[in-house]
Amino acid sequence: MLSQTNDEAMLKQIYKVALTESKAYPWLDDLSNKIGHRLSGSSGAAKAVTYTKEQMELLGLDKVYLQEVMVPQWVRGEKEVAYLQVEKQKKSFPICALGMSVATPKNGLLANVIEVKSLEELKALGTDKVKGKIIFFNRPMNPEFIETFHAYGSCVDQRSSGAREAGELGAVGVIVRSMNLRLDDFPHTGSTNYKDIAMDKRIPAAAISTNGAEELSKLLTENPNAKLYFKQSCQTLEDVLSYNVVGEITGSEHPNKIMVVGGHLDSWDLGDGSHDDGAGCVQSMAVLEIFRKLNYKPKNTIRVVLFMNEENGVKGGLKYEELSSKNKENHIFALESDSGGFTPRGFSIEADDSNFDKITTWKNLFEPYLIHIFRKGHTGVDIGPLKSEKIVKVALQPDSQRYFDYHHAANDTFDAVNKRELELGAASMASLMYLFDQYGLQ
Amino acid sequence: MLSQTNDEAMLKQIYKVALTESKAYPWLDDLSNKIGHRLSGSSGAAKAVTYTKEQMELLGLDKVYLQEVMVPQWVRGEKEVAYLQVEKQKKSFPICALGMSVATPKNGLLANVIEVKSLEELKALGTDKVKGKIIFFNRPMNPEFIETFHAYGSCVDQRSSGAREAGELGAVGVIVRSMNLRLDDFPHTGSTNYKDIAMDKRIPAAAISTNGAEELSKLLTENPNAKLYFKQSCQTLEDVLSYNVVGEITGSEHPNKIMVVGGHLDSWDLGDGSHDDGAGCVQSMAVLEIFRKLNYKPKNTIRVVLFMNEENGVKGGLKYEELSSKNKENHIFALESDSGGFTPRGFSIEADDSNFDKITTWKNLFEPYLIHIFRKGHTGVDIGPLKSEKIVKVALQPDSQRYFDYHHAANDTFDAVNKRELELGAASMASLMYLFDQYGLQ
Repeated sequence: MLSQTNDEAMLKQIYKVALTESKAYPWLDDLSNKIGHRLSGSSGAAKAVTYTKEQMELLGLDKVYLQEVMVPQWVRGEKEVAYLQVEKQKKSFPICALGMSVATPKNGLLANVIEVKSLEELKALGTDKVKGKIIFFNRPMNPEFIETFHAYGSCVDQRSSGAREAGELGAVGVIVRSMNLRLDDFPHTGSTNYKDIAMDKRIPAAAISTNGAEELSKLLTENPNAKLYFKQSCQTLEDVLSYNVVGEITGSEHPNKIMVVGGHLDSWDLGDGSHDDGAGCVQSMAVLEIFRKLNYKPKNTIRVVLFMNEENGVKGGLKYEELSSKNKENHIFALESDSGGFTPRGFSIEADDSNFDKITTWKNLFEPYLIHIFRKGHTGVDIGPLKSEKIVKVALQPDSQRYFDYHHAANDTFDAVNKRELELGAASMASLMYLFDQYGLQ
Repeated sequence: MLSQTNDEAMLKQIYKVALTESKAYPWLDDLSNKIGHRLSGSSGAAKAVTYTKEQMELLGLDKVYLQEVMVPQWVRGEKEVAYLQVEKQKKSFPICALGMSVATPKNGLLANVIEVKSLEELKALGTDKVKGKIIFFNRPMNPEFIETFHAYGSCVDQRSSGAREAGELGAVGVIVRSMNLRLDDFPHTGSTNYKDIAMDKRIPAAAISTNGAEELSKLLTENPNAKLYFKQSCQTLEDVLSYNVVGEITGSEHPNKIMVVGGHLDSWDLGDGSHDDGAGCVQSMAVLEIFRKLNYKPKNTIRVVLFMNEENGVKGGLKYEELSSKNKENHIFALESDSGGFTPRGFSIEADDSNFDKITTWKNLFEPYLIHIFRKGHTGVDIGPLKSEKIVKVALQPDSQRYFDYHHAANDTFDAVNKRELELGAASMASLMYLFDQYGLQ
């Protein structure tokens, strides 16, 4: 009972520090408003590496260092243009190139359009019908899912695989409805994946805003032979050197047992990546900040990692695992925050039954903080490659309702993040790390 | 088990209809963007009565009617002005008159300022020090509370009682730090209560934005003898006739047992009252809309009430109870939504132990919808006066983190409400009403 009382007191202190003293919010302000977007290979990404390393050094951690990693450098080029030619009128739409897409021909692309709702529908059309056409993927996210990530998961194949599959059937371009549950005018980018298709066989892919998708669909029904024009000049340059940013507090009892917490420092180039994933980065840094402020000496080594290049390559996550394997590091725990800076609701956990059961015994400690979700499930892309024998992986699960309003779009900006929601997430992460440090994997 | 399965299926249908077909969001759009603010006695309030009555009629309810109620008519007048005279410079601040406040003298008020953090600190100063001064109440909301309503509750006495208590000690005016956890430039209004103090003894009270409060405090520390000027021309006119808007589906088995659901149709006059409480109104209407769409025939009478004048008098809530008593109505259940249109987290419940225990047995049915709070606590201001013998009262409890960012301020507008969060609240309300209709108070 003493222990339970101590833990209650510790969590209370953690939440108090997070809500009254943490730098998480001013850090995010700097990342978002002073540095801006942090697309891999961009000057923003480089500045963010320098900035976060400096801030970690100010925390008085035991070690702060960079891990070199080569990352792809995709650049958007000029503002994209799209319109439907309906008789003599040009009806414009807000589009953006999908990440990693190739450009259109220099003067753009003009072709008839076929609207489909799925990859299956595309395949059923076959080469004869698809050849020479622009394929318009227009399956909306399903609003019936309570958690929006499920709606995303059941929809995002259009974005990730649409260009590859349409290209294989002879299409000349792809337009994809944005992954957004709202009707608005923001196109949402995100990676499209050509896999091993030869460069000269790749077709350009762009996202259209949800309002635009609705309007385009309506116009195509009325004018099935209208041609769509779009133009984008994005390109993939040579890979460049970048970095994961790492800081740690060395464990007082088990310095070789590592508990890692992180988010990804890169972002897309629309907006400033405040939710995706500036929030996860500053929350992860805040975990170590809170431990330092409380003068908590962890038993195990607590390491924050800001991963580079989650969005279009996961090179940082892969490099981290590679170095960890090479150095024979023993990771006992990994926590990722990459679902936005919204009110935390709980944790998604990858663990064997005994560790999972142990974690659920801590539920009552989180009740005062309205943290209620403890379940097995997917965790994170950057900690995905880690494969220590008995590692427990966890993802922070914030409220998901607003995430796809902002995801990969120009409105993912600092003002969309609420200070308290961000801080409560950091406190929840620090609390779980504290409890695992005390009682985990014994 | 059959029943459990049926209930699961029914809740699934309720959430589906709410998320795919409900008019809650377009109704709120109309209330907020076509009608605007709905301060008691205003033209907006009158239009909102007509609009919501018409919309209820379109739902095909069994009865739709108005209840006459006389309400106070407080008007803000010209835009308020405030500045601190520091030597030859005038440092301006964003202020707004508190609701029900009296005006300053026509040419404004200029006086020295005493900053206090509490009513206790004010009283300790005594008449000698307070006389002729402007009292500046500057106790911030405490960020350590996890639920922001607790921070509000521990702070709002400055706004509700500050003018009365300072006036009794001879102060000439009151400036109150806005009830807002963020630092920003919006002053937040809300009622101040003079109780039975004679009209000519009442002193004017205004709210200052949180940024303004910080700045004023700093300047006063540097310039303790600087005088503050403020001017406001608000006044209370004659009471006017207004209405509660009522619609109902008559119970198929117990038409005389009434289950009421509601929010308040009036708002403050800054912003358009989208969260406070346009959201609660459209959610309450949506409960009946959902039942109609699902062709659900409730056993008990399900009644929606949009109460007038919650903000500055509760005349609608009192009138509803008066008529209910007069007509010997039997209310078995009352549900109020007046905490913003944010993601629902659960319910605050006033009930005897056996009813409370029964409601908590439904918890598992709500798990798929991430509804997890079922606890005894405060419910609502408008259903407060109801006093049927065994009535169960409930308040919807949405996530509270952002509520006071908008509460009673110019940024409480339609764009601050997320469609899905609003709809999930309506679905949660309808689900609880369905279960209570089936199994409650048997």
